[in-house]
Amino acid sequence: MAHLSYVFIIELLGTMAFAVSGAFSAMEKKLDVFGVVVIAFVTAIGGGTIRDVLIGNLPVTWMRDIIAPSVILATAVVAILYRNIFHNLPKTLFLFDSLGLGLFTITGIQKGLDAGIHPAICVALGTITGCFGGVIRDLLLREIPVLFHKEFYASACIVGGVVYFLLLYVVSAPVAQTVAIVVVCALRLLAARFNWRLPAV
Amino acid sequence: MAHLSYVFIIELLGTMAFAVSGAFSAMEKKLDVFGVVVIAFVTAIGGGTIRDVLIGNLPVTWMRDIIAPSVILATAVVAILYRNIFHNLPKTLFLFDSLGLGLFTITGIQKGLDAGIHPAICVALGTITGCFGGVIRDLLLREIPVLFHKEFYASACIVGGVVYFLLLYVVSAPVAQTVAIVVVCALRLLAARFNWRLPAV
Amino acid sequence: MAHLSYVFIIELLGTMAFAVSGAFSAMEKKLDVFGVVVIAFVTAIGGGTIRDVLIGNLPVTWMRDIIAPSVILATAVVAILYRNIFHNLPKTLFLFDSLGLGLFTITGIQKGLDAGIHPAICVALGTITGCFGGVIRDLLLREIPVLFHKEFYASACIVGGVVYFLLLYVVSAPVAQTVAIVVVCALRLLAARFNWRLPAV
Repeated sequence: MAHLSYVFIIELLGTMAFAVSGAFSAMEKKLDVFGVVVIAFVTAIGGGTIRDVLIGNLPVTWMRDIIAPSVILATAVVAILYRNIFHNLPKTLFLFDSLGLGLFTITGIQKGLDAGIHPAICVALGTITGCFGGVIRDLLLREIPVLFHKEFYASACIVGGVVYFLLLYVVSAPVAQTVAIVVVCALRLLAARFNWRLPAV
Repeated sequence: MAHLSYVFIIELLGTMAFAVSGAFSAMEKKLDVFGVVVIAFVTAIGGGTIRDVLIGNLPVTWMRDIIAPSVILATAVVAILYRNIFHNLPKTLFLFDSLGLGLFTITGIQKGLDAGIHPAICVALGTITGCFGGVIRDLLLREIPVLFHKEFYASACIVGGVVYFLLLYVVSAPVAQTVAIVVVCALRLLAARFNWRLPAV
Repeated sequence: MAHLSYVFIIELLGTMAFAVSGAFSAMEKKLDVFGVVVIAFVTAIGGGTIRDVLIGNLPVTWMRDIIAPSVILATAVVAILYRNIFHNLPKTLFLFDSLGLGLFTITGIQKGLDAGIHPAICVALGTITGCFGGVIRDLLLREIPVLFHKEFYASACIVGGVVYFLLLYVVSAPVAQTVAIVVVCALRLLAARFNWRLPAV
């Protein structure tokens, strides 16, 4: 069953992580139930949707199968019902969001490669897949896009993407994927812990 | 003549309704003539454009035929020239906008079905078609997106979409379409009249 | 070599002009190095990306060849390193931006024609290609979109596009393209010099 492939599972985990992160941003802004579900959706599918549109992989992935939308809806409902529990777990949420970032970056790169796109551009595509769900969420909530005030957000994707291509020379694809996901996730956690910043110009 | 089909006519009416609604939002913001025309266009075609892109129905519909762009341009010019008359008819405008919402929701669902997409996702697609012209208009005018402060906007589309699928079991498609359009439109008018709100979380 | 065609060269020049203009907008907002590069990219490729998506020319142009992304990256780095020199040349920058506007408008029209789209809609497509890189840049930087406060920005594209189609009746395509680019560029420079405004409504 293709559905149970490795890439499918990591994509689903990333989707759930981003749906939770979107739902919490929306609840902080005091949106109603519908608004929270919409923002959870947009955060979870925004990056992958832009990726699919740019490479011409249409209809976009989330429209071809009822599984991802169902998972997002269920995740958003759980996030709303158990928001007090989640609220006391800010580090868990941050971990989930970082995991989603790593997962989406690597699936984005993989889909770029499948479409015959140059590796350097695949890194950009992976970064877009990882970051633009959050960017659309921030535009809709009228926040400064995450891309520009958490500097190590996108940089972590780029480094992870480069690591992935280097690893492909020495190990198998699933191993390279796993390591690259850990690299993105770890870079972001370390950047937050030690307050890394890129130089201003 | 395919052009005179039922769906084509309701789509054209919705386009005109949304062009008027866009033109008035832009005039309230004191944009110049060009800005008013652009916002009228974006409001009228935004939702359908996003729908076409998501399902891969490209080039997007409004580019394939000069009729829709001509109608939008003419509608925007009429809205500018007779703005005083329209201004004294806020209820008429609201009725038009609600009609546009219903019309676009149902055509969006229909195009999703034609593309072989799951009914539940078609409801989301119809809602996107109905709402995202207004969302892009609000982003460009730097307003809080309509989706989040008029709660019954998108909810009306979702209910209308579900009604449409239920009706398809008992009546013909044109009848189901007409009833569903009336449902979306009526729900929105009733919600505004009685100030319905979804619960905050 | 197709790469050295006339259209390719003018598209590359426009890309560089817009990358510089994007980098400077981002540096004014005190973004970090990464943010400046992202905004340079988005400004340079945004209009062409929306054009490609609307007409279904996918994967989008900048993903099919490493040349354009490399040129944008190099241009952004040069803009960052030599920002003091550029800063003392505001008129040069404005000239570049106007040149980019003209170049992109005409390539947008040409690609619309190649896709079999009606000339009047091609003018809209060219205007979108010319203007929407700047619109996305402004949305991400939370500015009022350029489209609405520099009124002669898009109007110059529309006039240039109409001139292009009229010229095609009397001269060859490359001549018509060159003249139309000069018209867009000159209109914008004259509008800025003499403070032309469209009437408010």
